[in-house]
Amino acid sequence: MISSPYLLYLGSATDDLSVKTAIGVAAWRPELCIGEFQSEGCTVTLNLPRMDFEQAAAAGVQTVVLGVTNAGGVMNPQLIEHILEAIRAGLNVASGLHQRLRTHPTIAKEAALKGVELHDLRHPPEDLGVGTGVPRRGLRMLTVGSDCSVGKMYATLAIEREMHSRNIKANFRATGQTGILIAQSGIAVDAVVADFISGAAERLSPARDDDGWDLIEGQGSLFHPSFAGVSLGLLHGSQPDAIVLCHAPERPHMRGIASRALPSLQDCLNANLEAGRLTNPDIVAAGVAVNTSRLDPEQRQRCFDSIEDLLNLPCEDPVATGVKKITDNLIKCVDKSKAA
Amino acid sequence: MISSPYLLYLGSATDDLSVKTAIGVAAWRPELCIGEFQSEGCTVTLNLPRMDFEQAAAAGVQTVVLGVTNAGGVMNPQLIEHILEAIRAGLNVASGLHQRLRTHPTIAKEAALKGVELHDLRHPPEDLGVGTGVPRRGLRMLTVGSDCSVGKMYATLAIEREMHSRNIKANFRATGQTGILIAQSGIAVDAVVADFISGAAERLSPARDDDGWDLIEGQGSLFHPSFAGVSLGLLHGSQPDAIVLCHAPERPHMRGIASRALPSLQDCLNANLEAGRLTNPDIVAAGVAVNTSRLDPEQRQRCFDSIEDLLNLPCEDPVATGVKKITDNLIKCVDKSKAA
Repeated sequence: MISSPYLLYLGSATDDLSVKTAIGVAAWRPELCIGEFQSEGCTVTLNLPRMDFEQAAAAGVQTVVLGVTNAGGVMNPQLIEHILEAIRAGLNVASGLHQRLRTHPTIAKEAALKGVELHDLRHPPEDLGVGTGVPRRGLRMLTVGSDCSVGKMYATLAIEREMHSRNIKANFRATGQTGILIAQSGIAVDAVVADFISGAAERLSPARDDDGWDLIEGQGSLFHPSFAGVSLGLLHGSQPDAIVLCHAPERPHMRGIASRALPSLQDCLNANLEAGRLTNPDIVAAGVAVNTSRLDPEQRQRCFDSIEDLLNLPCEDPVATGVKKITDNLIKCVDKSKAA
Repeated sequence: MISSPYLLYLGSATDDLSVKTAIGVAAWRPELCIGEFQSEGCTVTLNLPRMDFEQAAAAGVQTVVLGVTNAGGVMNPQLIEHILEAIRAGLNVASGLHQRLRTHPTIAKEAALKGVELHDLRHPPEDLGVGTGVPRRGLRMLTVGSDCSVGKMYATLAIEREMHSRNIKANFRATGQTGILIAQSGIAVDAVVADFISGAAERLSPARDDDGWDLIEGQGSLFHPSFAGVSLGLLHGSQPDAIVLCHAPERPHMRGIASRALPSLQDCLNANLEAGRLTNPDIVAAGVAVNTSRLDPEQRQRCFDSIEDLLNLPCEDPVATGVKKITDNLIKCVDKSKAA
């Protein structure tokens, strides 16, 4: 569990892309974020109160979130100095960098001295085990993708928000670093040992006996040749009652591989349902979430219409239109008696 | 590269199962194994000359192979003492235990002092990257399974042996610890970081421009809910021209999961071909390798006949009958022009 409230560390960032983790956390959990920290030269702001570490501690901040991506994921000397200042101010530190906080001798020593927590978000727990696929109780939805980075986290969070607005119990289950900061817990499934992918997903969404939902953030795509193993293990371990397919319609090719076309949405949906039946024979598709940020309103509507015609499922853009229809269908199509 | 010849360390084993790694290496690479080491109480033998470490070094042994499985994969004090003795005799050490040789302070220090190599077979290289799925040259076969532990390594090695007997260039590519000792190289794909499964498979079977085959040892099963992610990443990364399905007909349920039935062979084959088309659209099934060790000759023949009728593919037992028909079909059904 990562303690809030957060101070979002922006370093000396000069573009939004390098602070996209911080932007995601501030967008989905504004109530967790009470300040931002900028180094010299930083031109990005989240319009939060600017604080140094002492001020942040005085304001009640619990954790400094390193919401920056560095080339190579390595900590530079200025960042290390700032981390040490934060620790000395009594703040926990959460990092999405590849280089670990906990194995940096000075950082680890100072943290132990001050009794603060270090969270290496890319480094999963070391006591994971293999999955079993044994059926468990509870209602679960997993987002799946036609590709990487097509809005699976946003779609999952939008469904959680929609369910909460209807007073339905629902928990976002995070599988990537931004998601983990938003949920204040989770497992970076792409970083677990390969044997433990489905086991990590089972740990992440354990059996539940209330009538609430676990809404699980998907990763990768069954059709991405780099990451499909992660996607399949996550699908098997999540044992979802329903999947929501996420798609970016303007994508010219699979992310990072210029030679590879995207799958057809029908093939993608069918492959996920077929594979998902291994651990949940009753799995259904509940809807399609599309990132239409590059389309004008008319193009957007045509995109929705054509996908709805093709797949006979509600299609929405979580950001532009919300996910009311997808959520309606998700609730309708999953047999509620299962949780009873 | 693990240097040979080997001294097979049997410890104080009292049953064959606990030394199955050593048995596998001795069975498939007798020419690599020139001695065995037994501690007090050991009742198992591979009928190799018994040697202590000094004698082994004098006989030309390069590497001591810890062919034992301990409860928990941890080194006990006697094993540590033996490892240190081996190092002091100038021998490399290869271990399939979970606990690493290289992070044990005394072992690491002695090895550095003596200039010998430590091989932790369960711990893959740390410089792996993500796979790309970009087509590469060469002929590749991957064994796939209806379940875990159905003889994929044996089938792969039997095909290599059959090809060598026909003067066809072929290399066994190892993905598990016993296989790595047999091949003297390889990657334990179930232990890589999840994001790098297909990347590990690409590293393992790089493009080749001769007309030889890479014969890749499969892992797990697309139908095993614990390990399917590994199997899928290995399938995508291997980019095989052909698969050989491996099966253990007497298996009552999926290994380790009493509640789960095995898939039908037809479903299993189809799922592997369908998923394999992502990185090799021309993938074909070449045969079925069955472990019939528990069947009498008449039952064995009935088993072969029924599978051949069902799948229209040659079916053999790599140990009991050899793999001539499977190899014939493998060579025939893969378009040789591809490698030209």
